[in-house]
Formats: sequence, C-alpha cells, structure tokens
Amino acid sequence: MIVEMRTGASRKEVDDVVEKAKSVGLNVQLNLGTDKTVVALLGSNTGQIPTDIFAVLPGVESVTRIMKPYKLASREFRPRSTVVDCGGVRIGGNKIIVMAGPCAVESEAQLMEAARAVKKAGASILRGGAFKPRTSPFSFQGLQQQGLELLARARQETGLPVVTEVVNPADVDLVASFADMLQIGSRNMQNYALLTAVGKMHKPVVLKRGFANTITEWLLAADYLLAEGGNHAILCERGIRTFEDSIRFSLDITAIPVLKKNSHLPVIVDPSHAAGHWSLVPAVAKAAVAAGADGLIIEVHPNPKEALVDGLQSLSVSDFSRLMKELSTVAASVGRTM
Amino acid sequence: MIVEMRTGASRKEVDDVVEKAKSVGLNVQLNLGTDKTVVALLGSNTGQIPTDIFAVLPGVESVTRIMKPYKLASREFRPRSTVVDCGGVRIGGNKIIVMAGPCAVESEAQLMEAARAVKKAGASILRGGAFKPRTSPFSFQGLQQQGLELLARARQETGLPVVTEVVNPADVDLVASFADMLQIGSRNMQNYALLTAVGKMHKPVVLKRGFANTITEWLLAADYLLAEGGNHAILCERGIRTFEDSIRFSLDITAIPVLKKNSHLPVIVDPSHAAGHWSLVPAVAKAAVAAGADGLIIEVHPNPKEALVDGLQSLSVSDFSRLMKELSTVAASVGRTM
Amino acid sequence: MIVEMRTGASRKEVDDVVEKAKSVGLNVQLNLGTDKTVVALLGSNTGQIPTDIFAVLPGVESVTRIMKPYKLASREFRPRSTVVDCGGVRIGGNKIIVMAGPCAVESEAQLMEAARAVKKAGASILRGGAFKPRTSPFSFQGLQQQGLELLARARQETGLPVVTEVVNPADVDLVASFADMLQIGSRNMQNYALLTAVGKMHKPVVLKRGFANTITEWLLAADYLLAEGGNHAILCERGIRTFEDSIRFSLDITAIPVLKKNSHLPVIVDPSHAAGHWSLVPAVAKAAVAAGADGLIIEVHPNPKEALVDGLQSLSVSDFSRLMKELSTVAASVGRTM
Amino acid sequence: MIVEMRTGASRKEVDDVVEKAKSVGLNVQLNLGTDKTVVALLGSNTGQIPTDIFAVLPGVESVTRIMKPYKLASREFRPRSTVVDCGGVRIGGNKIIVMAGPCAVESEAQLMEAARAVKKAGASILRGGAFKPRTSPFSFQGLQQQGLELLARARQETGLPVVTEVVNPADVDLVASFADMLQIGSRNMQNYALLTAVGKMHKPVVLKRGFANTITEWLLAADYLLAEGGNHAILCERGIRTFEDSIRFSLDITAIPVLKKNSHLPVIVDPSHAAGHWSLVPAVAKAAVAAGADGLIIEVHPNPKEALVDGLQSLSVSDFSRLMKELSTVAASVGRTM
Repeated sequence: MIVEMRTGASRKEVDDVVEKAKSVGLNVQLNLGTDKTVVALLGSNTGQIPTDIFAVLPGVESVTRIMKPYKLASREFRPRSTVVDCGGVRIGGNKIIVMAGPCAVESEAQLMEAARAVKKAGASILRGGAFKPRTSPFSFQGLQQQGLELLARARQETGLPVVTEVVNPADVDLVASFADMLQIGSRNMQNYALLTAVGKMHKPVVLKRGFANTITEWLLAADYLLAEGGNHAILCERGIRTFEDSIRFSLDITAIPVLKKNSHLPVIVDPSHAAGHWSLVPAVAKAAVAAGADGLIIEVHPNPKEALVDGLQSLSVSDFSRLMKELSTVAASVGRTM
Repeated sequence: MIVEMRTGASRKEVDDVVEKAKSVGLNVQLNLGTDKTVVALLGSNTGQIPTDIFAVLPGVESVTRIMKPYKLASREFRPRSTVVDCGGVRIGGNKIIVMAGPCAVESEAQLMEAARAVKKAGASILRGGAFKPRTSPFSFQGLQQQGLELLARARQETGLPVVTEVVNPADVDLVASFADMLQIGSRNMQNYALLTAVGKMHKPVVLKRGFANTITEWLLAADYLLAEGGNHAILCERGIRTFEDSIRFSLDITAIPVLKKNSHLPVIVDPSHAAGHWSLVPAVAKAAVAAGADGLIIEVHPNPKEALVDGLQSLSVSDFSRLMKELSTVAASVGRTM
Repeated sequence: MIVEMRTGASRKEVDDVVEKAKSVGLNVQLNLGTDKTVVALLGSNTGQIPTDIFAVLPGVESVTRIMKPYKLASREFRPRSTVVDCGGVRIGGNKIIVMAGPCAVESEAQLMEAARAVKKAGASILRGGAFKPRTSPFSFQGLQQQGLELLARARQETGLPVVTEVVNPADVDLVASFADMLQIGSRNMQNYALLTAVGKMHKPVVLKRGFANTITEWLLAADYLLAEGGNHAILCERGIRTFEDSIRFSLDITAIPVLKKNSHLPVIVDPSHAAGHWSLVPAVAKAAVAAGADGLIIEVHPNPKEALVDGLQSLSVSDFSRLMKELSTVAASVGRTM
Repeated sequence: MIVEMRTGASRKEVDDVVEKAKSVGLNVQLNLGTDKTVVALLGSNTGQIPTDIFAVLPGVESVTRIMKPYKLASREFRPRSTVVDCGGVRIGGNKIIVMAGPCAVESEAQLMEAARAVKKAGASILRGGAFKPRTSPFSFQGLQQQGLELLARARQETGLPVVTEVVNPADVDLVASFADMLQIGSRNMQNYALLTAVGKMHKPVVLKRGFANTITEWLLAADYLLAEGGNHAILCERGIRTFEDSIRFSLDITAIPVLKKNSHLPVIVDPSHAAGHWSLVPAVAKAAVAAGADGLIIEVHPNPKEALVDGLQSLSVSDFSRLMKELSTVAASVGRTM
C-alpha cells in the first residue's frame, strides 16, 4: 500500500502515518522526495487492511494498493527513474555506462593490463571476479581476498570504480570494504540470506537475473535488497535458459522495455554470458543499447585464449575498442550519450 | 559434400561431377556463380562416400564435407549473402525492408486504410493474413480466397508487393497466384509437406521460426524449401517459448548474429508476435535492426481496439509512423539505409 | 455452451435447440447418450449470447457455459470417459493397451519379425511408420505406400490392428484405406489442415502432443478432430522440450492426471521418444501405467543396432517381453488389467 | 581419476598413492570398502596428469579417468548404491521411505497433529520448514529457531527423525543441532557457500534439484557436499520449470532412471511442489515409485485450507493415509517394500 503525503505535509503527519501502520503490524519504507513524501506500507496481510484508516489521517493525499507482487522496485512506488551513483559514475541517466574487465582476476599483470585498456577504450567501471561461483568444486574458485586487493590497486591506478561478485553472506563486509559496487550473480538471485546481507550495506548492487527466473521474481529479489533501506539496485539481464543449444543462454531483449515500464531501477545487460562466444557479443551489445538499456557489463581479457575462466566469451582489447566506437553511434541514434 | 569447380570450368566438367554423384546415389544442387560453379552433393549416406572420387575429376578445385546438418542453407555452401527479390524489393541487401499491415485481412476498408498508411510511413511490402491458423476450431479462420483478392487489390492501388501465409499444401497454387511472397507460419515450420509444396513454386518465402525449434532445425526446414531448386527463403525470428510469462514469446535476439554467421539467407524479425503488446514493439524493433536484421515484419491496424485477431500487439498508424522515423536513425548508426 | 436435455426429451425438442442455435450463428455438436442428449453450441461469439434463450425451450434441463477454451474434448462436455474402439481393441477401458513395433517400416522381413514378436509378448496393436517426417530433407523419408501395404500384410498375418502416421492432408484417404488407426505426429499437432482432414475420416486417431505445446493447446487440437463429428481421439504424451540435455525430451508425467481431470479422452504414453534411449524406457513405461495412462506406444525392433531410424530408443524383442511382464504387475497394483 | 587398490592392499600402499597425488597438486577422497579401497584424485588439472604415475605404484589395481564432469557422485567412483542412515531410517535400500509433514511449521498444535497423523499412516521421517525461503520479503518467513524447537519436540513424541531446510551458511550449526537431516532447497542448489557449510556437518542432506538445473549440474552440486568428506547426500527431484502452465513445475520422471544409471546416491521425489495441487499428488507419487525412486517427501497438513504456505498442494491426513495404502501395492509391484 502506498500513502502519498500532500505537498508540504509536516514531519509529524508523516510520523502519524508510520505509527498507525506499525500499530496494525505493517512495515514502513519512506521515499522522501524534495517536495513530497511517499510512504510504502508493507506486510503479508496488507490485503486485509482497509485503506481508509490511512486516508483519514491529516496530511495524506492518497492511498493506493500496489497490485504487483513486488512493491519497492515497482514504478507505482517510485514513478521517477532511479539513478544510482557508483563512485561518481551515474547509472540510469542519459549516459550509457560500460563496465568492463576480465571474468576472473587472475594476476596483477592481467588485471592491470585489462584495467588500463578498458579505461582507454572508454569504460567507466572496472569489473573482475575475485570470488567465483563454479559449477564444480574442483574448478578454480577465484583469488578471493587477494583478488579484492588487486581490484583496489587497479582502481587506484586507473581511477575506475570497481564492481565484483559476492557469494557468501559472511564475505559481504570484506567485499564491501574493497569494492565500489557489489554484484549478486545469477545463481544467487534467490539466495535471500545473501540479498539481505548485501542490502544492509546500502552500497550500489548489480542484481543479475536468475537464468530461469521470471521478471516478477527478479523484481521481488530487488525488493529484498530495497527492503533494507537503500535504493541502489541495478538490474542486469544476462540471458535465460531455453532449449536453444547454439548459445549458452538466450538474452531476453524484451525484458528491457518490460522492466522500464514496471520498475524505476536502472537496467543493464551482460552480452558476454548470454552469447557465450565473443563473436556474438557486439551484435547483442548494440541491440541492448537500441532497446533502451542504461549500460553494459562486458568481459574483456588481454589474452582471451589464456583466460582461466570463460575465455571463449571474452573480447580482446582491440575488439572491445572497436565495439565502444560502434556503440556510441547506436547510443546517439536513440538519444543517449556514451 | 560441396564440390567447388575451378574458375572457367566447362559445362561438360560440371556435368561429369553431376553424373558421378548420381551414379553413387546422391542428389545434386547447382550454385552457378558468375565466375565459378559450386555443386552440392546431398544424400543420407554422404558420410560413407570418399571425397576422392570427385576430387580427381577434371575441373574440380576442391571437395569439402559440410559438417553442419543443414546443407543448402549453410554459408559453407554459399559464402555470399543471398538477396531475395520480392516484386522488385530486394531483401538481404544494405536497405532494411519493412513489411507491415494487419494481422488478418478483415474487410476492404480495413485493408485499404492500412495499406495506404503503411506505404505512406515507408513500408516496402504489405502483410495481411487471409488463411489464419487458429488455436481453436471455433475462432475466426480468415477471409481465405476473398482475403487474397483484397490483398491483390491493395497491391494494385498502392504498388506494394504482398506477403501472406499459406497453411495447406492444397492451397499453395491458389495463394501463389495472388501473393508476391508466401509465408510459412511458426506452427508449420516442420510441416514438411507444406515446405515441399511451397518450395516447388520458386517464389520468395518467409519462413518463420517454430516457436520451440532450434536454429539448426530451422535451417534444416530451409533446406526443405531450397531442395526444390529455388533460393528464395527469408528467415523470420518471431520469438521462442520460454518460462517467462510477462510476454507471449521471448525474442531470440542472438539468433540474428548466429544466423548471419552460419547461413547465407536474409534474416528478418517479427517484433509484434514476440512481444505480444504494442508498447514493447518499438524497443524490440530497434534492437533487431541494431543486431543486424535485414528487415522487420510489423502488425499495423487502422483501429487496433477493434481488430478481430491480435489487436493488442498491433501498432496504430501514428505509432508506426513514429517508429519508422526512429528506425531510420538506428539503421544509419549500423551503416544501413531504410 | 452445453445444453443438457431432460431424460426422455423428444427429438423435436432437440431439433428446436439446434435450430435456435443456428439462428444466432452457432455451430452444434450432438452427444446422444442412451437416456440423455447433450448439445454443444460452438462459435467464437458464445460469450455474447445469453443462456436464457436456450434455457426457456421445452425439454431443456440446464444450460452451462464451458469456461475452458477447449470444448468438445472437455469433461464438462462429456463427463464419462470415452472408450475408442480400434479394430476390436478398446482403448480407455480398464485394460491397458500396448501398441508396439518398429519406428519405421523398413522391409517385409523386419516388419513381420517385429509384428510376430510383439504379438507374442502381448501387444494389442502394431505400430510402424510408412511416412516419416524427418528433420532433414536428405534423410530416409519412409517406404510410403509400400510401407502401408506391408503393414496391411502384417495385420493379415497377426490379426493385430495397425496404427501409422499421416503427414499430408493429401495422403489421408490413402493411409486410412490401409490403417485401422491414424497417428498425428508431434510436429503436426497444430497442422490444422491435417487435423481437419483426419477428423473427417471418423477413424480412431492417436494425437501426439506437440513437443512444445501446453495441455490446453493440445486439447484445442483435439477439438479440431472432434469438430468433424467423430469421437475417436486418443491423446499421446511423448515428452516436451526442456533445458535438460541428458534425454531427448522430458516426459510430462503430470500431464496424465491433468488430462484425466479435464478431458474425457483416453491417454496413452510414448516412453521411447521421450527417453531417447532404450535403457530408460522400462522405468518411464511403468511410471506411466502407475500414473493412470490407458496405454503405451513402444518402439520395438528385431535388431535395434541396424534400425534405419531411432535405433537407440528401440527395445529389443527380449527386453520388450520382459517389460510386458513387469508392466502387468504394475497395472494390477493400480487396479488395471493388461 | 579413480585409483582402485588391490584387494588386501596395505594402508601404507594407500598412503603412497595419496602422497603422490598431493605432490602433483591433487586433492584426494578415500572410499574405504570392506575388502577394497578406492581413491578419488580430484583437481582442475587432472586431464594433464598421466595415469601411469599412479598405475606403477605397489598395491594399485587400476587407474581410470572419470569422464563425467561430476566425480564423487558418479557411479564410476562408487559402483554400489549408497544407503544413507537418518536417525536409524535407511534411505536407498529396498524399503521405500516416506517423509511427510507440513510445508511450514506454524504452531505446536499444527505440527503435533501432523506428526502423529503421518506417523500413524506409515511415514518414517517428519518434514517441516522452520526457515522458509520466500519469493517476497514481505511474506511469512517461518518460525525459525522456535520452529526448530517444535520439530525436536515432535521427534521426541513420535520418534520420527526430522528433516528441515537450511537457507543461510550462518544457520547451519543451529539447524544441525536440532535436525536429523538437513534440506537444501531448489533455489539454493547452486549456493556453493551453503553446500560447503552443510557438507562439513557430515549429516544426511536432502539436495533438491534446482528448478532449472540439468542433472549434470545437480550431481556437481552433490560433489560440493561430498567433497567435504561425507557420503550422506540424497537427491530429490521436485519438478523443473517448463512452458507448461497448468502445473507449477513439470516433474522430470525420467531423471529417476538417469540418476540411478549415473550416480550411486539415493533418489527421492517431491510430488507436492511439482504438481502444485493436491489432487495431482497421488498419481505423481505412484509414478515415482514405479520408476524406481527410493522415497518420497510429501506435504501433509491437518487443515490444508488454513495453511500459511502452499495449502493448495498439501494432502489432508485422510488423503495421505489412503495414498500410503495405494503406494504399498505399487511398491510391491516393483519388488520394493514400504
């Protein structure tokens, strides 16, 4: 349930709404706009509570039920698009943001070379995995803390903010102490313990879509992040599992306009994991920008053939530079900058 | 197996290859280029036949096995991209072709209004269904022959070539006598009797992807068309069936670069059936062009709210006109014209 | 809309209902029971027609709207389970019916050996493909008319009725002149021209589920068959396309109770195509019987390793004989005979 | 790589193999049989290490590469089927084990009533959720520690061992201190931090299949559990996500024989979550037993209509009792007891 306060409603009036909500067992989220406050009333039993008990309170302009199962991530709750700030880089505005770097941090040399190269080509954020969720327990699991330290060093040298994945609630503090933005991977989209732990950090988060989750489930997962009080989630479409076997995952391009219609959160696309082959990445990346994505996250490796993880889907530095130029004309064609 | 003849090989040398192939039970398809002839040798037992028996013949430059299950539709058979001519409109060249019109032909007034409007907005080909494959036997099945006659009248008035679906091998002659291009719908992609009957007409054909067929099966279906001797197939991606339930079908955007890599045939996209809702069509259409599609087939209805079939996914005339302008800037951004 | 007549309603009273229905543009199907007649009123606009205009007619007991999209195949239309007679073999009764034989008819020797063996092991119906829908135009397409003749000869020798697939509306008369039961394959489930042509024959039909069709679409396809006036359709679950890649198709075991709840038609299962490997067939076959299937259709080949089509999924004669014994105990455990 | 020692090989000979393995960077798992020891050598680089360096060691009978991506869960590693002991109940033997109880523990009264009823009807293990992974953060999340205490009380009263889900690595110790068997839910199948934490407990674990994971990925997840040194994993098929929309998930019945062929671990089936409706549960449960499952986990609620979670899929006590009787005849028909 959304309670919209009148322009100029007093803090006392807002507090009265909050108190009333708590008295009937609801949780509350405040969206304090510059001239108007919106109060979200949340709980499993909102359907049984009449809107009138709030509508009659002083300072209340309107009370609306949110019909979608997701609440905080919905456009009904925040009609205006959210812009997330990550170390000074704004995601969700007119400028299309590219995050690039290797799938896994492998060594200082590899990471520094990649970081310098993607910066030169125009990327705004450096990506790189320190904790890698791997299908087999006997595969390389990432450099872990050492990888985080290397990412911090790469940020220091290039000035690029860094985004990296966290896979265990117990590691959230550690990862957050190094990274500018946390990433929740596809396999953890419904790992609610992790979502809650990450949400509590009030840091920017890239929330990848579970490879077999509906858009509704995805926005409900975003609700887990937002329920901890921040508003820093970025949705990342990375392909869904289908019967098609020529590619790793089928990128759901239509998810972009569907999300833009139903949610206020920024939307980015990972063309590398979806396609699974570097030669397909440019076409998918351009499609994503044309369809309205706010950014891209792309795997780039200084030497894809020797990558420890996912080399086949990584662009070389020169292919990435060429793609960045092509993307800027596509971005301009839909009224965006890069 | 592909036998590439030397530049300047004589007709007699080509005939000898053909004769040898037939003597070992193979079928043959000739690709007569301007300076070079390529002979495809086809059969279920090509794996057992040594390439040497052809390699030693005079005039033969090379003999290659096609490892893909599809043969005639593969780029290995025809490295150069095919351009299909439909009533003077060239599909597969630099210019992006838009086919537009109502899902079903409903009346002379409806069709004429749609035809004039899509022409004015820049469409090159008129689409409209006369025979409608419907999930229930008790739904409207199309105006059938009367619909074909109306399409012919609309072509006469506007000069636009027309494309329309055929659903029964017994109707192929009739439909081909009215239409410039035949369409095979998603549910009939593996209706081999229909594919063979349509292939025999040597007319341009839009082959829609079966909503649960792999790209490999799709190119094998194209082989059924091409095996009848023409080279006029156009592949149309229209969305695949997945678990996502906010849209009718999930458009497989990555299929575009995959097809461009593996096949010489033109590729178009139907954003209307995939999205299932008109408001999502523009984003998907722009994505398709950015990803490298050669054309689009879009549902446009003069009065979408009163459409007998699929009104929800049809663009109004004004929305279509606006989209055409937007598409032309996206097309230019990837080096294409419209 | 279903009009149930009173017990003992006169023919004139039924005719009046039919006439009224036609006067408002509806089609009619009669279900003449021994003591009661049910009239189905069908059309795309039944939602706009009030039930009252029928309820007031003499002899009418009740008028009900069928809320399911499918009508004639629904249990609402025929509450009692249908039993289909195929050359004296009753499908849909207490006895579980096994149809067995080779995927494709390859030669007289192969077919006769298979026919004798499956009869000896307890099969009631002989299956064998004469027209084979193949993914590639360059694969073996079946012996066609010669295959039909061999099937007729096998019936003559063994007394087993025969079921075989038809793929082209133009072949329906021919196939029906040889076979006791027609089969519509998975890829043709939504080939409405074929469904209509087959429906007109008023012969038993095995309607395989399209490998990516919902149960609702399947029952709508059955409506196409039943709309031609017969009541001889048998639904065959044969696996659906999913992401799982260790098997060819995922058998939808839950479809059996779902169909039994919503439709009056008999349900059989094809474990061979679903599993794709002979070693998995027995477990799936037993599961199908335990879940309530009325029969099975199983591929058996005298020499699976030399089969021209689908040898990997064919049982040998000895494996089939062993399975038949195991199945009979499972059948007994759920109160069925074999 | 699997090193099979000769019958009667000495401890010293085994240790030498282990030492050699460690010297080339491999991890080791021992399977100490009564008369024979098998050593699994594990690592991401086993492909580069020649088998000869182990084959020449004294006491070694054979060295085999495991070609499957999963290792410890494979039948190649342990040819004999594993039997898991859970509080005296043996899972994976001839007797089919039924675990039953409410989806969520709601109150002492509800749980005790359910526990007594399922025991009386013949269940061997009590199930009940204390920590509930819910799609929305605003839904009931379970009674948590209080729920665990109630489960322990129910065990005390009925003597039934209890199984309950754990969702956070931080809770594993707590849950393990109350429960006889831990459950990893479908959404956490690839939550590797959780798998590792649970594996370390060396307690029986029910590992539910991720609803969009392949069988190979599932067995790799089991490898995460087994890599911590125990051998107590039970695989639970609970339905996969497909396009079919009449049910919640499509139970993959063929997974049972596929798992039995490729893995030594016990296999159970959850018909309740797959079907999503209580009326479909009996047919699916019987199919699972007929197909070779070692057990079932079924939701039973004393008052399904008032359940806080998943009431629609819960059996009433009387329906469950009836089902248990029916299952015992099906079990007998495939040579199993109950």
